[in-house]
Amino acid sequence: MNADIFLIGAGQTRFGEWWDKSLRTLMDEAISAAITDAGVTALDIDFVVVANMLGEATCDQAHLGSMAASLLPHRPPALRTEAACASGAVALHAATALLESGRAETVLVVGVEKMTDVPNDLVAAALMGAADAERDAPSGLTFPGVFGLVATRYMHEYGLTREKLNIVSSRHHVNAVSNPNAQFRMAISPEAVGASPLVADPLRLLDCSPVSDGAAALILSTKKESDTRLAASAISTDAVSLTERQTITSFAASRTAAMQAFAEASIGPRDLSHVELHDCFSIAALVSVEDLGLADPGMGIHLYESEDHLTVNASGGLKACGHPVAATGVKQLIDIRKQLRQSKKQWGLAHNFGGAAATAGIHILENLHA
Amino acid sequence: MNADIFLIGAGQTRFGEWWDKSLRTLMDEAISAAITDAGVTALDIDFVVVANMLGEATCDQAHLGSMAASLLPHRPPALRTEAACASGAVALHAATALLESGRAETVLVVGVEKMTDVPNDLVAAALMGAADAERDAPSGLTFPGVFGLVATRYMHEYGLTREKLNIVSSRHHVNAVSNPNAQFRMAISPEAVGASPLVADPLRLLDCSPVSDGAAALILSTKKESDTRLAASAISTDAVSLTERQTITSFAASRTAAMQAFAEASIGPRDLSHVELHDCFSIAALVSVEDLGLADPGMGIHLYESEDHLTVNASGGLKACGHPVAATGVKQLIDIRKQLRQSKKQWGLAHNFGGAAATAGIHILENLHA
Repeated sequence: MNADIFLIGAGQTRFGEWWDKSLRTLMDEAISAAITDAGVTALDIDFVVVANMLGEATCDQAHLGSMAASLLPHRPPALRTEAACASGAVALHAATALLESGRAETVLVVGVEKMTDVPNDLVAAALMGAADAERDAPSGLTFPGVFGLVATRYMHEYGLTREKLNIVSSRHHVNAVSNPNAQFRMAISPEAVGASPLVADPLRLLDCSPVSDGAAALILSTKKESDTRLAASAISTDAVSLTERQTITSFAASRTAAMQAFAEASIGPRDLSHVELHDCFSIAALVSVEDLGLADPGMGIHLYESEDHLTVNASGGLKACGHPVAATGVKQLIDIRKQLRQSKKQWGLAHNFGGAAATAGIHILENLHA
Repeated sequence: MNADIFLIGAGQTRFGEWWDKSLRTLMDEAISAAITDAGVTALDIDFVVVANMLGEATCDQAHLGSMAASLLPHRPPALRTEAACASGAVALHAATALLESGRAETVLVVGVEKMTDVPNDLVAAALMGAADAERDAPSGLTFPGVFGLVATRYMHEYGLTREKLNIVSSRHHVNAVSNPNAQFRMAISPEAVGASPLVADPLRLLDCSPVSDGAAALILSTKKESDTRLAASAISTDAVSLTERQTITSFAASRTAAMQAFAEASIGPRDLSHVELHDCFSIAALVSVEDLGLADPGMGIHLYESEDHLTVNASGGLKACGHPVAATGVKQLIDIRKQLRQSKKQWGLAHNFGGAAATAGIHILENLHA
């Protein structure tokens, strides 16, 4: 880090189906909560970074940076970032650079998405914008299909069984019961996961994160201090098309971003107490814990089988919290802060990726009151 | 500026109708030209910022940051910015912050758009994403209509005649004759502008910039020096909806960004020798020269009537160069550098806005060999 950056405030809507709320009202709700939480005024915000992927497709609305800035009385400068489901992470990275550059002292980051007001086939097609429109989409793949391929290959390489995979979504659902902002606050047994309808073999309905509406906002500052320091911000990319990957059971962008983030924070995987990772599908959680260095290749399921010193997706993850795509990367940091405050531990990490991790972003938070 | 940033390389495709080129191939062409021009290798690029507005709507393709990074052998980190037609300017601003932060020493900025392969009504609807989908679009307005309102009000307030307005597009077309990258390299008389078909009264076909395909790339660096220094980067926002404006004959975001940019460069409007401004419609050129402080309110046409020490849109502007929306803000800097090198003058400015200037971005270049 090239400056001391503090997370001074955060707020979010509950993720879910918000047919009566627009992109504007969702942003407003999250932003207002973040400003209140930070104990600053709106006028203290120097710059706004909006994360959004699907505004054009689902709401005919681009230009969300300016729209978010208009929710503040002084209309600060603003921009919108997009990197598919990693839009939140790249927004945080842009905000970090703005703060480190000295151009801004206090930056508002808001991730927002509306997905439930339009037909499912439209959302599925729009989400395929995260893949390669020339090299992947013509095959007829949608993202459940992409991760169905990942799961099939992973099971082939490592012998993971369907019964073991059931544990992942079940654990996320159990975790979400105590999260008031989660879309699905009900426990689901491993057996129920395995008995849910097939979507893209071997993935079943309860392996898949849902479509969701929601917004999450946080305020980063070099001017005002807090109990939570941003210790690392790292972005990495990979080929967008699956056809250009050497493997699909590990994502190079996640590995590279993790390596850089750990170096930036001067810690290692063993120092972490809380991780929120990108379980867009159950199999992605296993790949990700391995890419983050929390488990050896093929051994990710062990983290879910044994209680450990480390919590993974204690919020409920994308599966149970919901996944309004660009809001997810912002919301993960909100949950990590909450978890660090509750446990009084020092280190937590948020891992967010887009597509099949053609973009990965990792942010590490340090609890200064640990 | 919080660092010495140099424009070390630039390249673009000709703007026009490129039915045989994809977003990827357009980016590749511009990026390759910029790298060659810079005299660096692709491996010197630390970060890629892509500007794009319409990828999802016209090509089913999001996630262009990662796609652009994949055009380089080492796949650096990347993100995409969007602020409607100001996407280029906000990409440049994000790149500036990344360089000033110390996170990157050499950043590639590439603006790209494909607009001509899809039906015109789809493009017109997608461009309305730059306006307010809840407050403007339901009236049936498209952007020619928005700027038709601006022109009507401007003519009412200042007595501008249709005959005078004809001069603007005519001048831009004459300028473009000598620009090999312009979409329309033919001179058009003022009379021809006034005789072209009505689009949105009082605006006629030749008052309107075209739909275009194209890409423009430039490389900014703190590590390698060049003859051209980035002297200011300023972004400002305004209400997205016209219904929330106090006036539509002047754009507050342009005025604010100009004020900040001039302060950052420690110069004033009179120091400029070359300006590229955002003439999405002819009337926008007149509003903009006034917002930039180059003419008094209502007097913008005088800059077009008299030869002066200052060139305005010597490239041909959006009208004659074409307007692949997110590429425009990047391409303007390429033209300013070219003009400064030719004239051996010191200062040039690029002015880029989105929507009805709900976002405005201004960049000032200094020729160090003036």
